[in-house]
Amino acid sequence: MGIKVLKTCTELQSHVRKLKSANNTIGMVPTMGALHAGHLSLVKYAIEVTDETIVTIFVNPTQFAEGEDLDKYPKTFEADLEKLAYLNVPTVFAPSNDEMYPPGCSTRIVPADVSRPLEGEFRPTHFGGVVTIVLKLLNLTGADKAFFGQKDFQQVMVVKQMVADLNLATEIVACPIVRESDGLALSSRNVYLSKDERVRSLALRKTLGHFKKMISLGERDAQALMSEMQQMLIDNGVSSIDYAVVANPNSLQAYDQIEFPVVALIAARVGATRLIDNCLIESG
Amino acid sequence: MGIKVLKTCTELQSHVRKLKSANNTIGMVPTMGALHAGHLSLVKYAIEVTDETIVTIFVNPTQFAEGEDLDKYPKTFEADLEKLAYLNVPTVFAPSNDEMYPPGCSTRIVPADVSRPLEGEFRPTHFGGVVTIVLKLLNLTGADKAFFGQKDFQQVMVVKQMVADLNLATEIVACPIVRESDGLALSSRNVYLSKDERVRSLALRKTLGHFKKMISLGERDAQALMSEMQQMLIDNGVSSIDYAVVANPNSLQAYDQIEFPVVALIAARVGATRLIDNCLIESG
Repeated sequence: MGIKVLKTCTELQSHVRKLKSANNTIGMVPTMGALHAGHLSLVKYAIEVTDETIVTIFVNPTQFAEGEDLDKYPKTFEADLEKLAYLNVPTVFAPSNDEMYPPGCSTRIVPADVSRPLEGEFRPTHFGGVVTIVLKLLNLTGADKAFFGQKDFQQVMVVKQMVADLNLATEIVACPIVRESDGLALSSRNVYLSKDERVRSLALRKTLGHFKKMISLGERDAQALMSEMQQMLIDNGVSSIDYAVVANPNSLQAYDQIEFPVVALIAARVGATRLIDNCLIESG
Repeated sequence: MGIKVLKTCTELQSHVRKLKSANNTIGMVPTMGALHAGHLSLVKYAIEVTDETIVTIFVNPTQFAEGEDLDKYPKTFEADLEKLAYLNVPTVFAPSNDEMYPPGCSTRIVPADVSRPLEGEFRPTHFGGVVTIVLKLLNLTGADKAFFGQKDFQQVMVVKQMVADLNLATEIVACPIVRESDGLALSSRNVYLSKDERVRSLALRKTLGHFKKMISLGERDAQALMSEMQQMLIDNGVSSIDYAVVANPNSLQAYDQIEFPVVALIAARVGATRLIDNCLIESG
């Protein structure tokens, strides 16, 4: 047995051809490594519902902007492999930058309109990088299903829209957010948090909990909800807020009066670390 | 028997699944209809080298700019079907605009750098539309090979680069230019030419013949070649020249002194009709 690490597109394509010709369904879990229990929940689910799981580990430079944390993004490759081997993942694809973006590689994807607000406003080049690498990986793995975490709520929407718009056959599967016992959503970036920041980072979860409670108490005024969310984030020690909004989860359009389903989405900094979280409510 | 015309993506995908599960290789010939012997040469070659040929007929609006000939582009659907049936093409995919671009469809492809000069300068949105529809059709048909005419020289380069950049498994096959007996390259747009313009349209072929002769006589000065080509186009009655250049066919970069391989590329108007043609010389 043992986990197989493929480094080149050619190796991966040849592996995939073998899997396909034996009629295996393929599940892809795209990651940037620094694996945590959130990633592993995707992997476990992929193993459960497809014949062969391919986990990709690639810190994709095109989804980071100048001044973002590309260089310091945590790298824990050996530990990642151990975790995946423990789950009996058969194959990891871990290419180099040059393998994914060889000289001359210049075709890019412009993500769908749903990429424009929220993350798109604060990280205008981010989703372009995401959909380009996701499409390349989907093409390489020939995945029947690909698994993404619901923490990146807008990312899931953008990827699903790409799959529909480009007539891909892959099913995009969104899996629930995994949290620390105190409620912080798991993220590879949580390691950046100091002890004090780690406490303050709970502001996001607390605020989403409050959002949920206000909805259950009958609050339907979107502006009132968003004002309270902003206030609560600041009161609980976030350093700055990119956005804290409630929206239609199918379009990301704002509500005046809340209807269902509804999602609350937050991006905020605690110290220098940018955290995102969200809470989806299906019905009132 | 009889030719099968599929109108929806769902029908096509279900057809393709059947073909794939029976281990057929699939050849795709993407067209905008108004089929001529150039298209049919692609179809014949596709039938020869793949198990199942799918011809697509779709006048793709996203590759036409405002003011171009989208509305008057020739439509000869019944005649097209007859020609394809005569070649025993089993399946035609002929979707509506809404089927290919349903409401909300907004993901787009930015073509590779090689799309920027020449056609890209004169039709800046053209190749974006081309690669977006080609990618969608490749995904729908699951084509092992897709067939393009060498008349659209730069298009073939842009599509090949997309396939490489996005790690698609499809092989892009370029087929030779087919010409009228007097040398005019076949194009669906030739029907726009008046009798007088039809005579003047031979300027392109004559000029490329002259280019070939000058090369064979030892001319290696790119500027001298291009000046003569421009002069000859005008002397033979073209109305205006978009470009008449010699370039490296692997990069489209200009030569000072000609090396091999070399390609001469022309885009010129005869009356209101824009014609393109080219001539590739592999070695001196």
